[in-house]
Amino acid sequence: MMVAGDPGREMFEEADGSHRVAKSEYRLREAALREALVLTQYELLRAPKFATLILIAGVDGAGKGETVNLLNEWMDPRHIEVAGFPPPTPDEAAHPPMWRFWRALPPKGKIGVFFGAWHTMPILARVTGKIDDAALKTRTDQIQRFEQMLADEGVLLLKFWFHLSKAQQKARMQALEKDPDTAWRVTEEERAHFRQYDRFRTVSGDFVAATSTGIAPWRIVPGADANYRALCVGDQLLAALKERLAAPEVRAAAPALAPLPRKAATRLRDLDLSKSVAGKKDYRDKLAKWQGRLNRLSRDARFKAGHAAVCVFEGNDAAGKGGAIRRVTHALDARYYRTVSIAAPSEEERAQPYLWRFWRHVPRHGFFTLYDRSWYGRVLVERVEDFTQDADWQRAYAEINDFESELTSHGLVVCKFWLAIDQDEQLRRFKAREETSFKQFKITEEDWRNRDKWPAYEKAVCEMLARTSPDNAPWTVVEANDKRHARIKVIKTLVKALEARLDAG
Amino acid sequence: MMVAGDPGREMFEEADGSHRVAKSEYRLREAALREALVLTQYELLRAPKFATLILIAGVDGAGKGETVNLLNEWMDPRHIEVAGFPPPTPDEAAHPPMWRFWRALPPKGKIGVFFGAWHTMPILARVTGKIDDAALKTRTDQIQRFEQMLADEGVLLLKFWFHLSKAQQKARMQALEKDPDTAWRVTEEERAHFRQYDRFRTVSGDFVAATSTGIAPWRIVPGADANYRALCVGDQLLAALKERLAAPEVRAAAPALAPLPRKAATRLRDLDLSKSVAGKKDYRDKLAKWQGRLNRLSRDARFKAGHAAVCVFEGNDAAGKGGAIRRVTHALDARYYRTVSIAAPSEEERAQPYLWRFWRHVPRHGFFTLYDRSWYGRVLVERVEDFTQDADWQRAYAEINDFESELTSHGLVVCKFWLAIDQDEQLRRFKAREETSFKQFKITEEDWRNRDKWPAYEKAVCEMLARTSPDNAPWTVVEANDKRHARIKVIKTLVKALEARLDAG
Repeated sequence: MMVAGDPGREMFEEADGSHRVAKSEYRLREAALREALVLTQYELLRAPKFATLILIAGVDGAGKGETVNLLNEWMDPRHIEVAGFPPPTPDEAAHPPMWRFWRALPPKGKIGVFFGAWHTMPILARVTGKIDDAALKTRTDQIQRFEQMLADEGVLLLKFWFHLSKAQQKARMQALEKDPDTAWRVTEEERAHFRQYDRFRTVSGDFVAATSTGIAPWRIVPGADANYRALCVGDQLLAALKERLAAPEVRAAAPALAPLPRKAATRLRDLDLSKSVAGKKDYRDKLAKWQGRLNRLSRDARFKAGHAAVCVFEGNDAAGKGGAIRRVTHALDARYYRTVSIAAPSEEERAQPYLWRFWRHVPRHGFFTLYDRSWYGRVLVERVEDFTQDADWQRAYAEINDFESELTSHGLVVCKFWLAIDQDEQLRRFKAREETSFKQFKITEEDWRNRDKWPAYEKAVCEMLARTSPDNAPWTVVEANDKRHARIKVIKTLVKALEARLDAG
Repeated sequence: MMVAGDPGREMFEEADGSHRVAKSEYRLREAALREALVLTQYELLRAPKFATLILIAGVDGAGKGETVNLLNEWMDPRHIEVAGFPPPTPDEAAHPPMWRFWRALPPKGKIGVFFGAWHTMPILARVTGKIDDAALKTRTDQIQRFEQMLADEGVLLLKFWFHLSKAQQKARMQALEKDPDTAWRVTEEERAHFRQYDRFRTVSGDFVAATSTGIAPWRIVPGADANYRALCVGDQLLAALKERLAAPEVRAAAPALAPLPRKAATRLRDLDLSKSVAGKKDYRDKLAKWQGRLNRLSRDARFKAGHAAVCVFEGNDAAGKGGAIRRVTHALDARYYRTVSIAAPSEEERAQPYLWRFWRHVPRHGFFTLYDRSWYGRVLVERVEDFTQDADWQRAYAEINDFESELTSHGLVVCKFWLAIDQDEQLRRFKAREETSFKQFKITEEDWRNRDKWPAYEKAVCEMLARTSPDNAPWTVVEANDKRHARIKVIKTLVKALEARLDAG
């Protein structure tokens, strides 16, 4: 949304004015609106194609809570999910900030209402001086990319900013405070915020201007007149739902990807797969040593208080992911880690944006999550097998980098392992699995088919390694023809990463 | 399980002895066991009929973590869900103790492994003297009833208690501590527990004896020899799964219900439905007054720290549940309450015990959850419409009383409202709904069919009121022919209940 002059300053000027709807007009319009909203809601449910997410934000006393009540009254409340976001609880604060919003996203077909959302804490932090302009800018950019991702995932995002002019808010507070039966409606929090009205207005104006993008503009709602604001929200909601229902299926545009560096394509071929740990005794000693260091780190007070670990295990079929994971978990207290094996998504997971089912397992501070396969499925199997449109796996690189950046900036250590074996070794292991009765379940027709596509997978892996290796969440390619070498390298890499992170504070 | 003499003392005597399996025998038996386990696991998944829950409990160092690793290695880890339960986090502590276990229950078809569970905290609390024998007895009884409920819901519950004799545990600790590379395996926690070995043995023995019921006996696992204990768990797991798969469908037995008091049957007919609030001004004043008191209570520091509110709204169709709920929420900060409208269960919810989908919305301290319809559906619509076997809705009374008792004993205030209108008033409202375009969605064929079954519903409601009205979670029957009277009575009742609970401390 381009606005001439100072967009932040001008953001609320129009809404400052008087906007009223007379009672008689309201009654007529409300009846028609309610009917249309309910019918549209049922149309959404009959063939769930997209989720609708309504953000309710803005000034205290401008009718936010009343509007949430109204939406529940107008539509069938069984299919509206309202989530309120007070200051984070201790458990929420022990997770990355976006975790609680991800958990509350509505599934396809439903309407979610967020009362307060990802904008609340950054604006408050800037107003109270806890963060500076540069930090707010960083957060604003992240929010823009997050909302773009929601749009690309097909979520219909409607953002309403409820506004009162300074004079309107003052008049409202005075009227309520005069009557002892209504004085409770003006909370201490509201009075405190009002004392900083001008500061809130400036910071909010800049934020609203910066995050009013084409895909998700803020809709300013003049909040002084209950009738006007109700119709303002209801009419816009109805129009947006109808427009979206009538639109052809939304497809995200393919992103512009930078050309890959020349060396990227041969990274796997340049590996020295002969690396090994020769003696059994040597292996056992090394394993015990690194497991001991890992155990101590997992009980380190600094780790418990402000860090967590996310380990991603990917690799060729039969490369030994499960065995490597168990050597890690053997060093951990079973109460403080979780292994998540990624299978086909459940019905609930399919109704959500792609990364939702991985976010739900993100550990709180003090915990480990080990992913046996992961969100990289999108740029590996889904790409190679054509399960996903090109534009969708191509945009996944940036979305994954954003996701992992949310984790690392909250103190999480992200270790990603690609376990590599060559085709001869894979063939040997496939055959051994077929010959061992209790391992036959590990080898299917699909594994043989994947093996036939070795070059296509190699290409996808090399591109993944090149595009998703930021400094704070790099890939470690593990030579895994020798299982002992692979296991030691995995644990050692994790230990070194944890030590470096704890020492960095 | 009846044991002569002192069952607690004798509980672990057999397991004290030496139990070993030689390596060569282990290899043979393990291979056959793994194959059978994997095949059985896939059979469970193909036609998900029941959930399997494995509890891993017992002495430190007796191989609990290793066994969890083994189960993951033996079977397909994508369909095993391991949950570890360290001491409760702040958010968990702000919910009733059983909440975190409910959230982690495995769905039908899957195998869940709980590392530590509902037994851990009571045993620890008794050993450290935080609770006395009577309190432990209360907790033990609750656990027995909870496990009975799981069994009645079809969950296959397998409880393994890992044991080491005092000498065995001492030898293990000394061997590990001798080698600097393995000394980390003996944690400070384990040393502290070992110093109280005898005390733990006595308390655990009594607890294990008391909770070894026919439906879910504890299986004592001698833990000193890794081979023996692995086969001990694996063989029993396999046998239990096979037995259950071969068994005809499990049906819970009908409970013995006490005869209803004579007055119960006419409770609804004795209501004075003419009660009303006459003037609009009078209504508005009263509403504002009670909403103000409710708002103050919701912000009371005592409420935030140690209480929460669960409000249940049931009533005749068109009795005004939605309108009453909105008068309550109008007094609350939208960030601190949640309205849950109960519709048909989702796929995920149908794969769980009945109460699971209500437990998930239980509020933490400081919050309100308002249920628009509730767990009482089982003894109302499901009973009248024959959706549920007689034995199942009949046992629901006791399960619901247990559920609500878990809430109230954690400081939650449970207010249950039955909104009652008479048949004439219902007819009037049904017709009005049909004539108002935006209310037509609220009236369906089903509502008319339900109306034809008025006497059957009345009987079910009266029995529900009689069987589920303990002192700390009573029903309030609300005369709702006059909406104003109903709304005022609801808020007033909630305010009085909160005030009484806060004053009681």
